[in-house]
Amino acid sequence: MSKLLAVGTVAFDAIETPFGKTDKILGGSGTFVGLAASQFGIETGVVSVVGGDFPEDYLNMMNAKGINTDGIEIIEEGKTFFWSGKYHNDMNSRDTLITELNVLEHFQPVVPANFKDAGIVMLGNLHPLVQASVLDQMNKKPKLIVLDTMNFWMDIALDDLHAVLKRVDVITINDEEARQLSGEYSLVNAAKKIHEMGPKYVVIKKGEHGALLFHKGDMFYAPALPLAEVFDPTGAGDTFAGGFCGYLAKTENISFDNMKNAIIYGSNLASFCVEKFGTERMQELKSEEVQKRLQAFKKLTQFDIEIS
Amino acid sequence: MSKLLAVGTVAFDAIETPFGKTDKILGGSGTFVGLAASQFGIETGVVSVVGGDFPEDYLNMMNAKGINTDGIEIIEEGKTFFWSGKYHNDMNSRDTLITELNVLEHFQPVVPANFKDAGIVMLGNLHPLVQASVLDQMNKKPKLIVLDTMNFWMDIALDDLHAVLKRVDVITINDEEARQLSGEYSLVNAAKKIHEMGPKYVVIKKGEHGALLFHKGDMFYAPALPLAEVFDPTGAGDTFAGGFCGYLAKTENISFDNMKNAIIYGSNLASFCVEKFGTERMQELKSEEVQKRLQAFKKLTQFDIEIS
Repeated sequence: MSKLLAVGTVAFDAIETPFGKTDKILGGSGTFVGLAASQFGIETGVVSVVGGDFPEDYLNMMNAKGINTDGIEIIEEGKTFFWSGKYHNDMNSRDTLITELNVLEHFQPVVPANFKDAGIVMLGNLHPLVQASVLDQMNKKPKLIVLDTMNFWMDIALDDLHAVLKRVDVITINDEEARQLSGEYSLVNAAKKIHEMGPKYVVIKKGEHGALLFHKGDMFYAPALPLAEVFDPTGAGDTFAGGFCGYLAKTENISFDNMKNAIIYGSNLASFCVEKFGTERMQELKSEEVQKRLQAFKKLTQFDIEIS
Repeated sequence: MSKLLAVGTVAFDAIETPFGKTDKILGGSGTFVGLAASQFGIETGVVSVVGGDFPEDYLNMMNAKGINTDGIEIIEEGKTFFWSGKYHNDMNSRDTLITELNVLEHFQPVVPANFKDAGIVMLGNLHPLVQASVLDQMNKKPKLIVLDTMNFWMDIALDDLHAVLKRVDVITINDEEARQLSGEYSLVNAAKKIHEMGPKYVVIKKGEHGALLFHKGDMFYAPALPLAEVFDPTGAGDTFAGGFCGYLAKTENISFDNMKNAIIYGSNLASFCVEKFGTERMQELKSEEVQKRLQAFKKLTQFDIEIS
């Protein structure tokens, strides 16, 4: 088992979907990655920052799940990052209503001493310079560095993004972002160009249409589980990344074949995440449920054709 | 082996994509279904209508592929159905430029005597009354009736569509059409409602995002093969349907597990269809190429997680 270090946001979200709306609830990429990774019984450390308004209960909940929160800095006089958004009927698009960066604006991540040797590092969607500063603090080369990013950083910090990409093994990115970063419409060609930027593995997330893993000439595809109801998609992408990293940290095998399994685990956990608002479903998720749903993924995708 | 009877259009298409444009070339749902089915060495009969302007060479080509064209009526004084369309850059949407129904306007399909006992009937996208008239001509109940339709018939002939759906085993439909027919956004819920309309099996085609098969509580998903270039998507859906029906006709096994294989064969053949304009790629397609690409589908989708 490797340690997993996850850098990302720990935040308040207020969410509106066709099924209802919430007040400020727990959210943030670091939170979702941590909760997903907690399914694997590994040592996970989250590096982030919150304000004095952040409830201790949330930190206690994470600790109870085995998530190390030593790296979550508390700025007593500051306020926690707050995002509010409204999903459209198709659940694939959303409007951001409010973004209050607050303490995130001057976030300088500090990696706790105990995680400077983490085998797997997940760099959540933050400024590329912030992501790079985490790598600078590691005291040995991690076995695998995974980076998530978004179009916003391509717009305002493309050079910094290219610089950090050179240091990364895996990028997770959505389809539109892959097209923007590469200038290629075809995802096959986009992945090829992004390979050339640094990452040996390119994971393209397509939301309800699943996820693709590219590595040299190889491709693997994991569908999203078709669900009768998607209640709230917030955090699904981060949960996917947390499942992916968590599985690799647990199994300590970064072969392409094992990454396939990691991708399926990511899809699997993401399929739970969307069933309730925010982190609710991930907080209560039982290992038996995860195993049962893996069976559903097998039934959904596995076939037996004899090839002549 | 069962005989396959396919009713659909045999037509001229003029196509424009970002890669180029064509004059009038061979097209039509019946043509694509027939060409796909010809990969399986089964007896396939196409029922359609063309005008006196339809080149005999095309019929000869189909015959050479083992496709029986006795059911293609030639109306010497009429003109062949003509469709012209232009694809947008994303290849997922298109504008219809010209639709000349011509001889298709008063099409009364006549099933050749030799195909009235076909085990599998594929009702291509035509007026539901025309589809029903084909079933009326069968002299024994087919083992499997597959129907394709589109939003146009939901708009102008919904009652007739509902009537023919009651007689059908499998419907193939795209995602937007499934939503329109069912009034449900979630494809899981849409499939459930469509089951209740008659078809025991619901196949939802999602273009580049693959296809889903629903049967009672079971689901199966086949991705589209990610391609560096989609040259021309025309006929991909019909090729998918032809591969699906052709495989089932060859194997004579309509279990859910074998339908999974049929869906994969459909996706496989469709992945070739889009590589060149119109029917060009399907005309030259070799069995070894199909087998080799099945291997690519396995690599793309198969994984090996132990479930505890």
